[in-house]
Amino acid sequence: MTGETQIRVRYAETDRMGLLHHANYLVYFEQARTDLLRGQGLTYKDMEDQGFFLVITNVEVKFKSPARYDDVLTIRTTVSRTTPVRIEHAYHVSCDGRAVAEGKTTLACVDRAGKLQALPQWFQDSRAAARSAS
Amino acid sequence: MTGETQIRVRYAETDRMGLLHHANYLVYFEQARTDLLRGQGLTYKDMEDQGFFLVITNVEVKFKSPARYDDVLTIRTTVSRTTPVRIEHAYHVSCDGRAVAEGKTTLACVDRAGKLQALPQWFQDSRAAARSAS
Amino acid sequence: MTGETQIRVRYAETDRMGLLHHANYLVYFEQARTDLLRGQGLTYKDMEDQGFFLVITNVEVKFKSPARYDDVLTIRTTVSRTTPVRIEHAYHVSCDGRAVAEGKTTLACVDRAGKLQALPQWFQDSRAAARSAS
Amino acid sequence: MTGETQIRVRYAETDRMGLLHHANYLVYFEQARTDLLRGQGLTYKDMEDQGFFLVITNVEVKFKSPARYDDVLTIRTTVSRTTPVRIEHAYHVSCDGRAVAEGKTTLACVDRAGKLQALPQWFQDSRAAARSAS
Repeated sequence: MTGETQIRVRYAETDRMGLLHHANYLVYFEQARTDLLRGQGLTYKDMEDQGFFLVITNVEVKFKSPARYDDVLTIRTTVSRTTPVRIEHAYHVSCDGRAVAEGKTTLACVDRAGKLQALPQWFQDSRAAARSAS
Repeated sequence: MTGETQIRVRYAETDRMGLLHHANYLVYFEQARTDLLRGQGLTYKDMEDQGFFLVITNVEVKFKSPARYDDVLTIRTTVSRTTPVRIEHAYHVSCDGRAVAEGKTTLACVDRAGKLQALPQWFQDSRAAARSAS
Repeated sequence: MTGETQIRVRYAETDRMGLLHHANYLVYFEQARTDLLRGQGLTYKDMEDQGFFLVITNVEVKFKSPARYDDVLTIRTTVSRTTPVRIEHAYHVSCDGRAVAEGKTTLACVDRAGKLQALPQWFQDSRAAARSAS
Repeated sequence: MTGETQIRVRYAETDRMGLLHHANYLVYFEQARTDLLRGQGLTYKDMEDQGFFLVITNVEVKFKSPARYDDVLTIRTTVSRTTPVRIEHAYHVSCDGRAVAEGKTTLACVDRAGKLQALPQWFQDSRAAARSAS
């Protein structure tokens, strides 16, 4: 349950210091974890269309070294923990082998009204299958 | 039907060139036109809650001189034309008297499914009242 | 002097209406035109490192139909006109063959101080070469 | 060394779920801490102009309850710790008395080349003055 995503830093995502603005790491993490899901044949869009919404409850990022315009970042994403209603991911961002950032997020599964609910069965099954295969 | 909004340029909105990234002008225009509406005692949020959505169909911006981090921009917004289903706004952005940008947008009123519909009656009435008052 | 870029709509780029927020089209156009340059073996980063900055002076967008989360958009970008100091691009955005938006931008070449200057000679040469090849 | 900033959630900052997208909290924190500085008669822009750059090395956010379009959020910001080269801030975000989020950031002072350096003396003095006044 680990995947890799590559993202090239856009001009609009840099700031006056010439660096990737730190808020965009959260956007990249989001893309990375949906790519990980997609790699398992699932899409987050389908989850939402079926009434399962993943909301973020916690995020931590340690910034190690700057990323710059046009850098191609590699984000290695791992599902570090799942419970029936929560998923934790860990992220490692690098650029040409240099560590750029590390992060962790916790997502909770809610319904359309924002009430906590169990993750869909097919999602839990796919996780169990991935675990037994590894 | 003219109003003024002041917006201070955020760090995250600048880019590597040290300037306000041009995509953010569209975000500022959006804030400016909702502020104009608010000044008439209406909110765009209420419109959406009642099932009236304003989608943008056209935008034009001329960039005159750069805006920088921490600049306080003044956006003068005017409703330049209304029809039963469309609203056109014109924007003039300045900083300490210096012209920064000019823009125009056209919004169309649609329902939740994206189908064109007439603007709400209370909205049309308020516009007529504003016109006769001016 | 036409190229194609594919961009998948990120969650963070959608808005409350469930659509790609219109300001992001300008970010996509920027990515599309730098990809076009890259396809010719040039990078905009190199241009800036050599002291040539392209600032936007004009943009127009017509929004035809909405783009949504996870849509993969195709942006066809064309250099529609060049002068010694300016470049005009035209953009056509589509999703599975459906027209989503059309846009035009004008960029001006300036130096580090923001003063208008001629585009670098190697850039002008590469454009001339591309024209004679087509 | 505590201050309050109010920020109204922009349309462009919401996402498909109808909520303030979580990446924007980092942008709001940044605005909040520069407002805090401004309240002491200092600006971050001046710091940068004098060659002192504050880069973020760590961020943590706990999301308590959602913020929505047009909500006016109150961000209470506190300098929780300073060293000669680092500043830690704590943030408490609320909306009409309801807790929305809590966060912490650590900033490091670097020079133009990204090398760690002591915070400017006038900055350290102002902090000492603020501490003795409280």
